Amino acid sequence: ANLVLLPGDGIGPETTAAAVAVLRAIATRHAHDFVFTEHAIGGCAIDATGAALPAATRAACLQADAVLLGAVGGPKWSDPATPARPEQGLLQLRAALGVFANLRPVRVHPRAAALSPIKPERLAGVDLLFVRELTGGSYFGARTRDAASASDECRYTVVEIERVLRRAFDLARGRRGRVTSIDKANVLETSRLWRETAVRVAADYPDVVLEHQLVDSMAMLLLTRPADYDVLVTENLFGDILTDEAAVLAGSLGLLPSASLGDGRRGLYEPIHGSAPDIAGRGVANPIGSILSAALLLRHSLGLESEAREIEVAVDAVLDANELPRDLGGQAGTQDITAAVLAALA
Amino acid sequence: ANLVLLPGDGIGPETTAAAVAVLRAIATRHAHDFVFTEHAIGGCAIDATGAALPAATRAACLQADAVLLGAVGGPKWSDPATPARPEQGLLQLRAALGVFANLRPVRVHPRAAALSPIKPERLAGVDLLFVRELTGGSYFGARTRDAASASDECRYTVVEIERVLRRAFDLARGRRGRVTSIDKANVLETSRLWRETAVRVAADYPDVVLEHQLVDSMAMLLLTRPADYDVLVTENLFGDILTDEAAVLAGSLGLLPSASLGDGRRGLYEPIHGSAPDIAGRGVANPIGSILSAALLLRHSLGLESEAREIEVAVDAVLDANELPRDLGGQAGTQDITAAVLAALA
Ligand SMILES: CC(C)[C@H](C(=O)O)[C@@H](O)C(=O)O
Ligand SMILES: CC(C)[C@H](C(=O)O)[C@@H](O)C(=O)O
Repeated sequence: ANLVLLPGDGIGPETTAAAVAVLRAIATRHAHDFVFTEHAIGGCAIDATGAALPAATRAACLQADAVLLGAVGGPKWSDPATPARPEQGLLQLRAALGVFANLRPVRVHPRAAALSPIKPERLAGVDLLFVRELTGGSYFGARTRDAASASDECRYTVVEIERVLRRAFDLARGRRGRVTSIDKANVLETSRLWRETAVRVAADYPDVVLEHQLVDSMAMLLLTRPADYDVLVTENLFGDILTDEAAVLAGSLGLLPSASLGDGRRGLYEPIHGSAPDIAGRGVANPIGSILSAALLLRHSLGLESEAREIEVAVDAVLDANELPRDLGGQAGTQDITAAVLAALA
Repeated sequence: ANLVLLPGDGIGPETTAAAVAVLRAIATRHAHDFVFTEHAIGGCAIDATGAALPAATRAACLQADAVLLGAVGGPKWSDPATPARPEQGLLQLRAALGVFANLRPVRVHPRAAALSPIKPERLAGVDLLFVRELTGGSYFGARTRDAASASDECRYTVVEIERVLRRAFDLARGRRGRVTSIDKANVLETSRLWRETAVRVAADYPDVVLEHQLVDSMAMLLLTRPADYDVLVTENLFGDILTDEAAVLAGSLGLLPSASLGDGRRGLYEPIHGSAPDIAGRGVANPIGSILSAALLLRHSLGLESEAREIEVAVDAVLDANELPRDLGGQAGTQDITAAVLAALA
């Protein structure tokens, strides 16, 4: 398989290297042939080429079986009044790959739960899968700006809404059979179209239970009753906010992976944490989000379910064994955690 | 003072009656002359007149010194695929009154904190004041809808952004002198205008510290470091989501008040909870959110700061004394709590 690596900025190169080490171990053990090619994105790409998503990077990703991304951005490329440029490379890449469904699983390891600001009794049994629409809405709508005003348009077509909802319903079938669709249908027209489409799609899934929640209520319910939900599906901006909120349940951002999928098998995989410039280059970043993103890559783009499970089981074993990274209150560095995962795999 | 009451739907009439009893007690004790006039809004107004905001209600509110609202909405008027109609009355009223700044204080009483899903050590010292922009953004933008797509426009003028930011900075001066401005400036044009305007306004407030946060990060920080924030200011939709999330800190929605203010003194006051149709008419609703909204009314529309403080101190005493409503795990009904607040005032 042809795997493109986009380490990006900040801690991205360190966490991506950890995930690659794990993928190489899996390849050796199972005699898979993974070819890695590295390309620039984000701030380092701006420095090297002037573009946050250079043409060569874009072309390589479009020919890959899967793309593993580290993180983009940092103070070097962001003026506080107008942050943005490295992140544009990521948005362009999502659009170029057509990865409209961003999957963010949130499971809570007991060791990490101790670090969560949420009381442990609320976290028992939490196993969420967010499906965030990733290539539409106000992230990609028309914008205007003049001296006196600005605007952003949130536009959704039925086609865009339906395909991401179907992905959520399909995923719910392999889980607990519940979909919660999140919108602001008491105010927004796009949300009313979203809700109507959800009702229509649900008719094709009589085995799945559909529930609607308003985004403001959901921001509360995620904290008061997190174990009650299974698959949660929502539009791009609501998903951005709610998935970061839900990450708090897991105790640390550093643990959480994501997979962005389109119609085919090709996907874009990235940990949900950012480039963390404050700790970059110091060997202390937690690589687990990136390692678990590699597991999602094996599962969703390469169809290697049992290899994906091996990685997930190994990560759980490392967390069980008290080998904790800094963000979970331990002392283990990036290489310590990587070595521990490799040892648990062996 | 001429006070318009809009009890609305569900538990609104019960909680509003409690707040009126408290306001009458304050009037008697301090020899103020409060004249109350009641009008219909929301679902009950649709039933009576066909309109969620009848012309008579609108006219009365425009002549009032302040408006105290209960809650609007309920399943009777909401088809699940298109919830909305009673809520439109509230949106129309906010626009008619020009109340662009929605103030939502979040303090955490220790008794209520025990009910919060957040660990108590994170809640120590939490004292937030949200200032949510209330009459702009995608709540009031152009919408389109056809068979294949829908759109909502989020538009902000510099004037709209600047006036709500100035309100936040003014309020921060009377508090701990910190403003956190929340946006999505790495993606949205309206957010970039928001951020630039915040930087410019801050120059007029050298005594106030301005910090920017992205809305997704803020959704985490609210839970991981809630005691670090003072005044938080943001646009309408982000404010809708984040204020509901922040309500979880306080242990129950039932405790939290809000004040919506424009340029003059006239304001619209409402608890942040909804109409709670499941418990309506049973005498068990927690009236504290409405009673504390009445305190905000005295403070912001009538300039009666010490009377407002009397109510707040009385509410704290009731919570201290173990007289707890159902939503806080106690047995006290609406009238028990109201009587206890009146007794604490006396
Ligand atoms: C970097 C930023 C543009 C991005 C987003 O808002 O989608 C990030 O927050 C994310 O959630 O992946
Ligand atoms: C009822 C609804 C329209 C309203 C809003 O979204 O503003 C409510 O959620 C609120 O926060 O006051």
